Amino acid sequence: VSLSRAEAEAMDAADPLARFRAAFDLPEGVIYLDGNSLGPPPRATAARLAEVVGREWGRDLITSWNLNGWMDAPLRVGAKIAALIGAGPSEVAVADSTTVNLFKLAAGALSLRPGRQVLLTPADNFPSDLYALEGLAGLIPGVELRIAEPEGLLAAIGEDVAAVVLTQVHYKTSARWDLAQVTAAAHAKGALALWDLSHSVGALAIDVTAARADLAVGCGYKYLNGGPGAPAFVYVAERHQAGIRSPLTGWMGHAEPFAFEGHYRPAADIRGQVSGTPGVLGLAALEAGLDLLAEAGPAATEAKGLALAELFMSLVETRCAGHGLSLLGPRDTARRGLHVAYAHPDGYALVQAAIARGVIGDFRAPDVARYGFSPLFLSYAQVWDAVEILREILATRAFDRDDYRRRATVT
Amino acid sequence: VSLSRAEAEAMDAADPLARFRAAFDLPEGVIYLDGNSLGPPPRATAARLAEVVGREWGRDLITSWNLNGWMDAPLRVGAKIAALIGAGPSEVAVADSTTVNLFKLAAGALSLRPGRQVLLTPADNFPSDLYALEGLAGLIPGVELRIAEPEGLLAAIGEDVAAVVLTQVHYKTSARWDLAQVTAAAHAKGALALWDLSHSVGALAIDVTAARADLAVGCGYKYLNGGPGAPAFVYVAERHQAGIRSPLTGWMGHAEPFAFEGHYRPAADIRGQVSGTPGVLGLAALEAGLDLLAEAGPAATEAKGLALAELFMSLVETRCAGHGLSLLGPRDTARRGLHVAYAHPDGYALVQAAIARGVIGDFRAPDVARYGFSPLFLSYAQVWDAVEILREILATRAFDRDDYRRRATVT
Repeated sequence: VSLSRAEAEAMDAADPLARFRAAFDLPEGVIYLDGNSLGPPPRATAARLAEVVGREWGRDLITSWNLNGWMDAPLRVGAKIAALIGAGPSEVAVADSTTVNLFKLAAGALSLRPGRQVLLTPADNFPSDLYALEGLAGLIPGVELRIAEPEGLLAAIGEDVAAVVLTQVHYKTSARWDLAQVTAAAHAKGALALWDLSHSVGALAIDVTAARADLAVGCGYKYLNGGPGAPAFVYVAERHQAGIRSPLTGWMGHAEPFAFEGHYRPAADIRGQVSGTPGVLGLAALEAGLDLLAEAGPAATEAKGLALAELFMSLVETRCAGHGLSLLGPRDTARRGLHVAYAHPDGYALVQAAIARGVIGDFRAPDVARYGFSPLFLSYAQVWDAVEILREILATRAFDRDDYRRRATVT
Repeated sequence: VSLSRAEAEAMDAADPLARFRAAFDLPEGVIYLDGNSLGPPPRATAARLAEVVGREWGRDLITSWNLNGWMDAPLRVGAKIAALIGAGPSEVAVADSTTVNLFKLAAGALSLRPGRQVLLTPADNFPSDLYALEGLAGLIPGVELRIAEPEGLLAAIGEDVAAVVLTQVHYKTSARWDLAQVTAAAHAKGALALWDLSHSVGALAIDVTAARADLAVGCGYKYLNGGPGAPAFVYVAERHQAGIRSPLTGWMGHAEPFAFEGHYRPAADIRGQVSGTPGVLGLAALEAGLDLLAEAGPAATEAKGLALAELFMSLVETRCAGHGLSLLGPRDTARRGLHVAYAHPDGYALVQAAIARGVIGDFRAPDVARYGFSPLFLSYAQVWDAVEILREILATRAFDRDDYRRRATVT
């Protein structure tokens, strides 16, 4: 039997995170199921940016680097991310993009495992991660990027592997790797585990310490609501910080940046992963997003997010049956992230028709409709309404209209 | 004879760029001579960011990547920088930090000159540039970073040099390398010239095309007034774009980012230098800064900037003589950038005492007071007043106060 809208409303009434919905200002009539691609702005972000531009940059000018904590921002904001992933406060720094950070830490993994020259990754890893690793392997003679089928990944970890590089939650299927299990399998062969947490940070209650994860990167603009192209982060377990070498060496990673020494001398802590001057505007917006997640707490965030995804999947099963939607990835929420994707023969047109009705999701080639369930700003009733809109579109074949079928070149 | 304040005011009355002062909102009583380190915010920036956060990010949400031109921003903003440095509109992209971009293009230079493994740079290059090159050389076996004394740089260009890497205007002395002359010397030996334009872009009327410069990077937060830690830029001459290989390969540099192909296939144009998702907030602020410079034009900007620097130097000579200020770098404005630096036995305390009187400059170890002359928001009368304040401080030894002498750990 299918849950009623009244029952969904009752779930909202009992939701301990319900108050966070008022911290966002989403457009009227929109059910935003794309926070897994671009989180929306918290209300506090605009005011925070106005403060940074007006008072800090405009009035305090150059003195803000010390006076307003700009110099420390990569580590201060990093510590707020650390709290979301079970890391120590001095194990995370915010810097650069996810892609650049992956390059940095993959090279760092090679420096921590001298004599090993292989980076191992699953074939279905996020393409930009594959590209970053290809770039590194192409740059250093002798380094090999070994690509394994996902089901054979653990068996492919050999004694020549410096690091296994993988994304915890798959960007399309939402399938979740077991952080502790894969890390243990890597360690058993003397390899490191380098994780991309882009589709899980701020969504799942990650614990890199319990999993003994070595290295990680992640994205600031999805569940962290840090803004379009927000700066990314790096995690380096404390036990590796003295030994790891970043190839992207800049003054902000120097032991004494303002000594202007002629040779690079790395900071012995997480600051060694920061290279250029930090982007203060991006950091400020990211911090506003993180402050909400810190208040909500990772356990409650994960619990609600998975409950929203579970509700969506179960309502689709009961109310949209027979309309050709085929779930990607595992059905069990314990083995997935907070987004849910379905293949459908008319996937693109379906996504467009739903957007026209206010249900914002996204399309991934060739035929996938993807919907994400950010816990801070979504309600259970919205999930119910979204499924009802999808049901109506599917039942009436509303997606058959030409203007929904026209393909954008970039989606 | 010394120019009078009335004469300085007359120069302001005749200044074709005077109207740009109203485009900034600097604090009352402040003469900001540190725009060469951190340019102040144009008035338009706060409104532009509010628009990006409120309407684009908050209302249009994920659709902004296409609808509001976020995807194209690295090249659109890049084209505005191109106009300032004499490049073609498709020769510049905004991405990453200056340090990361220098790593990227130095590796790119090696890819354009197979068989050559030496990167040559002057010993007094900006430390973060030296660090980036050290990082690259340390990563790839066989690559050598060769460091030459500045006066022997041209003679040190051998047939084994892939690229000469240098900063057009020195961050401390303001000494200017001749863009065309050094580039020609590099080309004569089959090497490329890779320029860091951080201390000259938005200040001097650079012409990379006339100079036949091959590659360049530069900073967005100095004379471009793009905001603290603004994104940086890369210039790749069109003739090199098809052949150059970036080591930092991410989805935004892929020929088809949203095809999500399993292997990297570089865009054949300047987009190949973009790696991760662009930071939209930083790009928006940078664009607001660039729009003012585009309106002013590089020739007028350089003319006024050099006139301000000339006025400062000549007033210091006539009004501050005998007080121990010793000019760094060449006296001739044709051979320098827009900042002026003096060694003084009490350099640090002098800078602090002037800041207390509203004249904001900065200190560079061990004993250097540095002042920058941004053409858009400074007046000739302010330059006159700044020298008068310095004269009073020097004449009364006001810098002898203990609170000026106390050293900050980071300045």
